[in-house]
Amino acid sequence: PPRREVLFFPSQVTCTEALLNAQRQGGPPEAACLCPLPHGESSLSRLLQYVLSAHSSLELCLFAFSNPQLGRAVHLLHQQGVRVRVVTDCDYMALNGSQIGRLRKAGIQVRHDQGAGYMHHKFAIVDKKMLITGSLNWTTQAIQNNRENVLIVEDEEYVRLFLEEFERIWEEFNPV
Amino acid sequence: PPRREVLFFPSQVTCTEALLNAQRQGGPPEAACLCPLPHGESSLSRLLQYVLSAHSSLELCLFAFSNPQLGRAVHLLHQQGVRVRVVTDCDYMALNGSQIGRLRKAGIQVRHDQGAGYMHHKFAIVDKKMLITGSLNWTTQAIQNNRENVLIVEDEEYVRLFLEEFERIWEEFNPV
Ligand SMILES: [Zn+2]
Ligand SMILES: [Zn+2]
Repeated sequence: PPRREVLFFPSQVTCTEALLNAQRQGGPPEAACLCPLPHGESSLSRLLQYVLSAHSSLELCLFAFSNPQLGRAVHLLHQQGVRVRVVTDCDYMALNGSQIGRLRKAGIQVRHDQGAGYMHHKFAIVDKKMLITGSLNWTTQAIQNNRENVLIVEDEEYVRLFLEEFERIWEEFNPV
Repeated sequence: PPRREVLFFPSQVTCTEALLNAQRQGGPPEAACLCPLPHGESSLSRLLQYVLSAHSSLELCLFAFSNPQLGRAVHLLHQQGVRVRVVTDCDYMALNGSQIGRLRKAGIQVRHDQGAGYMHHKFAIVDKKMLITGSLNWTTQAIQNNRENVLIVEDEEYVRLFLEEFERIWEEFNPV
């Protein structure tokens, strides 16, 4: 059945090492992590799992992106051959802690707006079949402190409409 | 069939007088408006129509609410006996142009957070059967200038989950 879930935030702060290590090694995590954080599921770990489920493509359209775990997840996907494209807002991109510079250095394509109005979306499209969208900016502050929502929905029509919006913005922000 | 639509912003700036007048008088607009704005549909007019479709209840859970047309729409619904409840963020509420003070004065119940983290949701629930949610704060700046999305969905499960979230916040922000 098509996946369909609503995540609410703030998220409990849980350890996500096992998720990211499993992705890096392409298998289940080997040893139990000994860090003091809880190791169960949380809204953040669910969101990470949905992002890490990408096999072929990932479009990100994010006003703000500074959370290190989500940054590592996107970096790993790029290293594993997933085609990642990122659209973001130039005002936030310049702030301390943004993951955008790091992703660019890793070779990921990033485009940003030129200043009139905010690029205020907060959505991702996984493998052109799953839409992740809501109020949540991908920042640790928002994840841990704010009241936020994220919808995860596998639905052809929603994916098509948001992918069209992504491509419109991608072309509009083309620096050439 | 259950309604289901995605609105993208920025919205064209269109005249919404006819919509609001029709609501006030409970009938179709009588005379053509002579103002210089376009009078067709726009993302804003669609959003207004969905909000104005409320007959019994309207829950608003909005980080920011300053757009005058949406403010008038909510005020009209309250005057017509719709049970309106508003949850908002205290940081934004204090800003110039917020509609919150005006709605409170009109007798609408408003609750706000006490400061830790943002109440960053941007959703509305119409008659406990339609969910309106997305990236859009209800401000004229965002409506006219930003890249934003709003989903409109009549879906029992989504409405139930967001209504539960609303009630949790409503209780948490209870000043008593
Ligand atoms: Zn750990
Ligand atoms: Zn007019």
